[in-house]
Amino acid sequence: MKDLPIVSPHGHVDPALFSDPDASFGTPTELLIIPDHYVFRMLYSQGFPLENLGVPTRDGTPVEKDHRKIWQIFADNFYLFRGTPSGIWLQQELVEVFGITEKLTSGTAQGIYDQIEECLQKPEYEPRALYDRFNIETLCTTDQVTQDLDHHLAIQESDWNGKIVPTYRADSVFNLMGENWVDEIKALSEISGIDVVDYSSYIQAIEQRRSYFKAAGATATDMGVTSAFTHVSTEAQLNSIFQRALQGAVTPKETKFFTAHLIMENARMSAEDGLVMQLHVGSNRNHNDFIFNRFGPDKGFDIPEQSEFTKNLQPLLNQFGNHPNFNLIIFTLDESTYARELAPLAGVYPTVKLGPPWWFFDSFNGIERYFKLVMETAGIYNTVGFNDDTRAFPSIPARHDLWRRLTVNWLSGLVVRQIIDEEDAYSMAKSMCYDLAKQAYRLEN
Amino acid sequence: MKDLPIVSPHGHVDPALFSDPDASFGTPTELLIIPDHYVFRMLYSQGFPLENLGVPTRDGTPVEKDHRKIWQIFADNFYLFRGTPSGIWLQQELVEVFGITEKLTSGTAQGIYDQIEECLQKPEYEPRALYDRFNIETLCTTDQVTQDLDHHLAIQESDWNGKIVPTYRADSVFNLMGENWVDEIKALSEISGIDVVDYSSYIQAIEQRRSYFKAAGATATDMGVTSAFTHVSTEAQLNSIFQRALQGAVTPKETKFFTAHLIMENARMSAEDGLVMQLHVGSNRNHNDFIFNRFGPDKGFDIPEQSEFTKNLQPLLNQFGNHPNFNLIIFTLDESTYARELAPLAGVYPTVKLGPPWWFFDSFNGIERYFKLVMETAGIYNTVGFNDDTRAFPSIPARHDLWRRLTVNWLSGLVVRQIIDEEDAYSMAKSMCYDLAKQAYRLEN
Amino acid sequence: MKDLPIVSPHGHVDPALFSDPDASFGTPTELLIIPDHYVFRMLYSQGFPLENLGVPTRDGTPVEKDHRKIWQIFADNFYLFRGTPSGIWLQQELVEVFGITEKLTSGTAQGIYDQIEECLQKPEYEPRALYDRFNIETLCTTDQVTQDLDHHLAIQESDWNGKIVPTYRADSVFNLMGENWVDEIKALSEISGIDVVDYSSYIQAIEQRRSYFKAAGATATDMGVTSAFTHVSTEAQLNSIFQRALQGAVTPKETKFFTAHLIMENARMSAEDGLVMQLHVGSNRNHNDFIFNRFGPDKGFDIPEQSEFTKNLQPLLNQFGNHPNFNLIIFTLDESTYARELAPLAGVYPTVKLGPPWWFFDSFNGIERYFKLVMETAGIYNTVGFNDDTRAFPSIPARHDLWRRLTVNWLSGLVVRQIIDEEDAYSMAKSMCYDLAKQAYRLEN
Repeated sequence: MKDLPIVSPHGHVDPALFSDPDASFGTPTELLIIPDHYVFRMLYSQGFPLENLGVPTRDGTPVEKDHRKIWQIFADNFYLFRGTPSGIWLQQELVEVFGITEKLTSGTAQGIYDQIEECLQKPEYEPRALYDRFNIETLCTTDQVTQDLDHHLAIQESDWNGKIVPTYRADSVFNLMGENWVDEIKALSEISGIDVVDYSSYIQAIEQRRSYFKAAGATATDMGVTSAFTHVSTEAQLNSIFQRALQGAVTPKETKFFTAHLIMENARMSAEDGLVMQLHVGSNRNHNDFIFNRFGPDKGFDIPEQSEFTKNLQPLLNQFGNHPNFNLIIFTLDESTYARELAPLAGVYPTVKLGPPWWFFDSFNGIERYFKLVMETAGIYNTVGFNDDTRAFPSIPARHDLWRRLTVNWLSGLVVRQIIDEEDAYSMAKSMCYDLAKQAYRLEN
Repeated sequence: MKDLPIVSPHGHVDPALFSDPDASFGTPTELLIIPDHYVFRMLYSQGFPLENLGVPTRDGTPVEKDHRKIWQIFADNFYLFRGTPSGIWLQQELVEVFGITEKLTSGTAQGIYDQIEECLQKPEYEPRALYDRFNIETLCTTDQVTQDLDHHLAIQESDWNGKIVPTYRADSVFNLMGENWVDEIKALSEISGIDVVDYSSYIQAIEQRRSYFKAAGATATDMGVTSAFTHVSTEAQLNSIFQRALQGAVTPKETKFFTAHLIMENARMSAEDGLVMQLHVGSNRNHNDFIFNRFGPDKGFDIPEQSEFTKNLQPLLNQFGNHPNFNLIIFTLDESTYARELAPLAGVYPTVKLGPPWWFFDSFNGIERYFKLVMETAGIYNTVGFNDDTRAFPSIPARHDLWRRLTVNWLSGLVVRQIIDEEDAYSMAKSMCYDLAKQAYRLEN
Repeated sequence: MKDLPIVSPHGHVDPALFSDPDASFGTPTELLIIPDHYVFRMLYSQGFPLENLGVPTRDGTPVEKDHRKIWQIFADNFYLFRGTPSGIWLQQELVEVFGITEKLTSGTAQGIYDQIEECLQKPEYEPRALYDRFNIETLCTTDQVTQDLDHHLAIQESDWNGKIVPTYRADSVFNLMGENWVDEIKALSEISGIDVVDYSSYIQAIEQRRSYFKAAGATATDMGVTSAFTHVSTEAQLNSIFQRALQGAVTPKETKFFTAHLIMENARMSAEDGLVMQLHVGSNRNHNDFIFNRFGPDKGFDIPEQSEFTKNLQPLLNQFGNHPNFNLIIFTLDESTYARELAPLAGVYPTVKLGPPWWFFDSFNGIERYFKLVMETAGIYNTVGFNDDTRAFPSIPARHDLWRRLTVNWLSGLVVRQIIDEEDAYSMAKSMCYDLAKQAYRLEN
């Protein structure tokens, strides 16, 4: 399975890396530490201020600029990652992408920095070259509703053959209580050419953007919510909430009902335009006010919450659950919902599939739990293979490799116990490592 | 352990199969597909309409009648069941019950249909013959409160020696919001000879039926509820809710409190008459309105919900938890309650035992999780062995076999780690595969 | 790892065992059965009244006094503990502490009783001698806020070198709805010399006691709560609740908000005085009224409940989560919170560490689950090694031994899979079995 091309149907790699043929990754520290919240959250947990790790502040207060110094802190404390998925990925990446053979320690830190730095200056370490070396077939990005997709269009018009597919994500205009929601609505008006003044023009602008994304090659949308609660409100109710949000006066309860209706609207639109709907549930974002105010979002302080799907999704599934053109892929951060709720739902609704283990659960044990908790009830064909979900482009092979090894290991266990035969196992492995992702995300063409 | 007789203390096999000496199972499709919601839910999840699978509609709209055509769809898609419990049971059943040696595929479908069909016409494939061949000692059925148990009585009066034991289940008269509740109350009046007009006559009729079932050999009752919430209301409150239900005007909240009291009443009656009380908690029944309206209940759309036992059962356990004649067996669909709530409760209350892994968790991994999550705190002697809980009679040996293999495998692991010795292991295995079920369900005589 | 000294940073051993050089453990039954709720809860679950097991009643109603008769019941039913942690500990204790080579059965019961009894009369079985033989370096006890710590002071003044460290626990004065809360407040006034008449003097007295404990060597506090809900109230609100509690008129809701504020106050005090804060969440104490009224607390009827940390701790962590002098160790009885909430929190907040598997989960499978569910996200260095949490002093080596074996087994698995190397494994093992506990509880000096 290790030689199958990589299909990466959901992730956060910056498309600008591929639109400019000469794009580069910067320094080793810019590549591996500063943008990776998995890495600096662990260092922060042991008392290292984010400033010392070069994480930029929102207000421009200066932070550490010496990338070798930051790298040294990282190497001094690399033992913290023992037994963690970041540890596995980073080690494999150092060996397989950069050819590092020494263990990263205080003593080897600067030598390894030199080696990586040298690599990154070579043409074969430019993003497009690595894309080919990594044997990537398709790489989907995640793009905000207000983006013009210039990078994607430039890639399509270029003579480079990589397939970088945009994914529509409108959370910035969905979250009524977001800091910049009013600005986001203005941006939405501008880019859509539709004056967003009420609920009806809001939905119209959103639909316009979906068409634009679809025309630019998108096959899927994404939506992140704290709760999967779905509920239908009247347009009058929704419009009244919308107006209050424009005035900055919306309440958490109103937001809850607005979001519950928006999930339904997204399902309706997906049933209409055929874009696959992804729903990511359960992250309590920016849990630490101090860190959020100083450094902004995505700083390692998104903490999972309990989730509920059986009751929460019932209104949505009663409306769209049997629809022939609707496809919903659900992601959870609450593993207790795997066997209890999500596998039973995915194992019967023709419209529902279960996404791979997400975030903290994209790990050795997390993947093993997923197989054991999900597959017996859902069957593998109601799941969608693997997502690397990463912004760390050079970690992509290591992440897919872990999934593939664990897939084959799990299937071998079934063969040994005579639950499946070898022929089944090969076929299932190829599905789980390649076909299911392509099919579920409609990436066949 | 494989030669021990089968004790099946909870299931849904139709007693009519045994009251008529010439009963038969019909076609292979009638035996294995049409009545098995595990099977057709998986096919539905991949887009096959239930009509095409021969599942009868409520209003009589015609569905596929060609059983070979349905069988072909099943065979074409049998790969969907790879790694699922249905896959394990079906394969073992084909081999061990019907002597099929080929793998079920599109190509072998009709040949295998022929073979099964031929078997089913032989006398040794009649239900009574299979009962003996399967080495079943006791088979408990589940019977509605308004049934007259004619089949059980006929079996008892026959010269056949099989032990088919009725189990009392009154959910149809308990669920105030059930579609046909008023009709069920009429049926209850009729069969009990007690005019059910208020809460007091209602309870009287229920008690009369329990006596009838006990006289017909029942040793246990069953009750299915969404939540384990227990609470005492006054008779005036209960009667007022009851009257509103008779008028079809009852609310979900009233129903919740009524059910909470009924669980207590059931416990009281069990303490009085000694029938073992089974409580099945957490299934959100008929989740899909479209399927329910068109095909009725038990169509694969019963989805588990989160459950809570520690607080919910406290009122009940404070009243009956130390009672010398009360026996409660609890089943959950929320595995997070195994180690957190149910094993601690079963491990201390003399009246509480924990039922085996239920429904989606009666599976390879489900059983392994159960052993690991439950046994350390509850001890095996506060559990009740295995229930196959099936309406698919020919799958019974495969289901018990899986439990027995996993039991022995789990115990072997404890021996290897020197946690128990071999003598302990043999004794525990026999308990878990035979004795505990007999004892817990009072089936010794 | 088996030769490392034992650091026991949290437990319930009686310090009086060490202040008196001639203290003894009493009879085998007094040592192993009567005080051990793990043992008698299992016997009660199978119908043996606590009276027959010698558990003292609150009102002095006589209970079984013949310790050999109680021992015989225990031995007759020792099979109940097969596969349980108590079974593992007891067997190892009999072999390694008392040199028993026979299996405990009905037949061997009295002979084994003789052997243990004989041991217990020898000087090498006195507590101080066993402390040395067990290679204990530090043993922390748990001590109520109103205690004078005379035993600890006596030990410190003695010529014995054992290190017995007190831990401050104020639950008795925190729980407004406790039976004896008003008496506890009187005791608090008395021992602190501060007349506790309102919220302000209450907090003052509590702070005075913390200083007293710290001066007596305490390095940590402990707090047990049903829910982790934290919330700030005004002093006026708190005082009003306090006054109502003094009058015995407090409601559950008031208690909930009072406790939510007290958790915050404890965090504030810890940030100020540097005592490590332990928070034990989720035990529904004294679930069985009959047993509580007759025998009192700690009788095996503390049953876990669902817990929530992400939202509940947010107010506390926003106030103290980034504080350089605050240290919080969290314990849960809800394993579904390990990977979902606690590992993500411990893996990023510099002030938060996750305690070892608690109570029912201090077991073979419980520890294995903990490693798999926690370590990938938290990293081992955000955990705190092992706590035996026991009042059964002679079981301490067996408990630490189980943790150590499972640690080494888990790490070996990582080495075999090449996730870590052997050098890492040795270093991690020593941390998990020794260093982390010392560091987290500030026991280095």
